[in-house]
Amino acid sequence: MYGKFLVEGDKSVRELLHSTFKIDAIYGLSEWIAAHKAGNCEVHTATQAELTELSTHDHPDQVVAVAEIPPLISDALSASQLYIACDRLNDPGNAGTIIRIADWFGIAAVIFSENSVDAFNPKVVSATKGSLFRVKVMTADLEVLFKDNAALPVLGAYMEGENIYKAKLPDHGILLIGNEANGIGAELSNFITQKVSIPSFGGAESLNAGVATGIIVSEWRRQLS
Amino acid sequence: MYGKFLVEGDKSVRELLHSTFKIDAIYGLSEWIAAHKAGNCEVHTATQAELTELSTHDHPDQVVAVAEIPPLISDALSASQLYIACDRLNDPGNAGTIIRIADWFGIAAVIFSENSVDAFNPKVVSATKGSLFRVKVMTADLEVLFKDNAALPVLGAYMEGENIYKAKLPDHGILLIGNEANGIGAELSNFITQKVSIPSFGGAESLNAGVATGIIVSEWRRQLS
Repeated sequence: MYGKFLVEGDKSVRELLHSTFKIDAIYGLSEWIAAHKAGNCEVHTATQAELTELSTHDHPDQVVAVAEIPPLISDALSASQLYIACDRLNDPGNAGTIIRIADWFGIAAVIFSENSVDAFNPKVVSATKGSLFRVKVMTADLEVLFKDNAALPVLGAYMEGENIYKAKLPDHGILLIGNEANGIGAELSNFITQKVSIPSFGGAESLNAGVATGIIVSEWRRQLS
Repeated sequence: MYGKFLVEGDKSVRELLHSTFKIDAIYGLSEWIAAHKAGNCEVHTATQAELTELSTHDHPDQVVAVAEIPPLISDALSASQLYIACDRLNDPGNAGTIIRIADWFGIAAVIFSENSVDAFNPKVVSATKGSLFRVKVMTADLEVLFKDNAALPVLGAYMEGENIYKAKLPDHGILLIGNEANGIGAELSNFITQKVSIPSFGGAESLNAGVATGIIVSEWRRQLS
């Protein structure tokens, strides 16, 4: 399935149908097919057993679709928008959560480093709850991206960064999120223009990458609103 | 294993050893056992195959322990602290994430409704990344809890609540988080003293329950700091 990805379940497939993504085929239970307009793609009626064959889930929900991965070209970034970049993000749940956060907070694009989890992995697709079809997702060599957009501020989350509640955050730029276990790689840390941190009031060593992203992006939006 | 719970993997078991939790038994690879002081409990050397039998993971990490669930009595709540309550929270990952957030932000206790996921489910334990051993976790009938603590403000997250960036949040009280799909139940909504919402700047219908909790608790701490 080179260049294609799987979209699973009623809710995600309905979001897909409302998106600009190109759909190759839909496989659904006859009731589902009868109740939905599939547009310009192959439509197949499937049994629950056939869906289970196609799906990555043990108990697939009514329908799966095969859609085309859009071109993931890293365009020049705008000097008036907010972006999220992810350095070697591993966990599909975190990737999906971050795409969903980006959708909620109107982030212009989420840019994954080439060695991050595949954003079109079925677990990521599912965790985005449909946000994948609305958020611009790109894959890029982040060193090249930062060099090509050298005028943009780059925020990095660090334990010893400036307190985000007191720091003055820029009105545009890129928030760089590091790998779950190892943080931001040394070669990328040179591009950081502002190190920030979420103040801690207790004993936890760290926050989950998705939660930390949500908190920083929310504070960013709060300062700009 | 009534009244007991399983703690899996090197990092979690090391956090357990540093906690006040009572440990019944530790089962570890001989190298792990040789390298760690287990204190006052049964210690068993196990092979990787034996660990796989005991563990809920296919590839367990060096050690598992059996510990005792502490008494989950819902004490009277303090009028000077922050609390999180969860109404029918279903997902173990969300429950673990919320306990980790509580640890980071110095929340006095996380109180789960009786029909929420079991906080000592191995997936919750793992998702807390050790925070379960530092945060006070209780299970309670939330209606009774709110009646017994009627003087405390109760924040509830709603789509149509006050913008958290502009709302004046109280200097103590309880943040109530609803079920992932259905939000806060009707019978509990009567106890809410302030409805709040995270402003949306994009197309997502909702945020993940853990992320939403992190953002609201962070804003709460910001206003108080």
